[in-house]
Amino acid sequence: MSAPPAGDLLTLDAAAQNLLFRAARTANTFTGEPVPDEQIRAIHDLIRHGPTGFNSQPLRIVLMRSVAARQRLLPHLSERNRAKTATAPLVAILAADTAFHEHLPRIFPHRPGIKDRLDADPAGREAQARFNAALQIGYLIVGIRAAGLAAGPMAGFDPAGVDAEFFPNGRLRSLLVVNIGRPGPDAWADRLPRLAHDDVVRTV
Amino acid sequence: MSAPPAGDLLTLDAAAQNLLFRAARTANTFTGEPVPDEQIRAIHDLIRHGPTGFNSQPLRIVLMRSVAARQRLLPHLSERNRAKTATAPLVAILAADTAFHEHLPRIFPHRPGIKDRLDADPAGREAQARFNAALQIGYLIVGIRAAGLAAGPMAGFDPAGVDAEFFPNGRLRSLLVVNIGRPGPDAWADRLPRLAHDDVVRTV
Repeated sequence: MSAPPAGDLLTLDAAAQNLLFRAARTANTFTGEPVPDEQIRAIHDLIRHGPTGFNSQPLRIVLMRSVAARQRLLPHLSERNRAKTATAPLVAILAADTAFHEHLPRIFPHRPGIKDRLDADPAGREAQARFNAALQIGYLIVGIRAAGLAAGPMAGFDPAGVDAEFFPNGRLRSLLVVNIGRPGPDAWADRLPRLAHDDVVRTV
Repeated sequence: MSAPPAGDLLTLDAAAQNLLFRAARTANTFTGEPVPDEQIRAIHDLIRHGPTGFNSQPLRIVLMRSVAARQRLLPHLSERNRAKTATAPLVAILAADTAFHEHLPRIFPHRPGIKDRLDADPAGREAQARFNAALQIGYLIVGIRAAGLAAGPMAGFDPAGVDAEFFPNGRLRSLLVVNIGRPGPDAWADRLPRLAHDDVVRTV
């Protein structure tokens, strides 16, 4: 194992590296401090610039602000995720819009043939929606941290149940549920091990 | 349309916001300046901290350093992607490891049952590998920009052809090809329109 690389190979300064990656952690508890709509708007305004295939931007974000909405969500979460989700200041369902191509005349106007091709290929469209929305979730988690907040992404939920409850017309597919707020007491355990460079990167 | 939100709702400073999102662009031309292994190592060392489901970290990165490797890749790219890929200082295939669960005893040791469950579910495992690797590609694009470099992600390629050529044992699935380097002359056209907050975010 070689030593970790020197930080000065990066342009991003150390404080930002820490804020976004090195010191940032997935939070399991949160303070009661609210996350206002203005902050979500600022996060979106930052991360919407991130690239997606054909500029397709299929990520959709559903904020659970009402008590009633959160109560509809909780039964679809795995048991270990319910308590933290019940008490997080803000919970969002992150979903892929399988009809993202309807926006292409506005967001990718110079190649109109792509919309027609996608119109005829619902399966390919859903795969593209899922992939590009997942990319955007990567940007979003970085953006939540850029706002000084912690994200608590959770894959432990029943996507079919969430989709039936929140997206009955079948257009959106839930990908992840994320709690958002300031970390509370004992918000995390020790960081889990990460794969080493040589486990991940190879050269041909 | 409301005015864009004030930048001070974010903790990340304006220079970093510009470097990673607001001024960063997908590059289509590159200078000849090489991208050394040390810089890729520094990028990996930053973004490996990003969260994934079950800490699964399924993203694999194959760097095309040899002329021969690049020649093997080019025929699988769409025609419009060939010239820029032939001249980029570094090209990487980004892939999902469908056998990521083999690492779980090391990277997610406290819940050993998950590896057994995934062992018996290749289809679910591939879906998880694709989703979490796509999340990590989001982190990687941010990380490439954090190194002061431009990324040129390309979905226009034949995944089956790339997989047969580079991953004949069937374990990895190519998700994206990305050119990496410093932007060259006329590296991009005007930025394409982004969806507005109210197109993307709703509250229930």
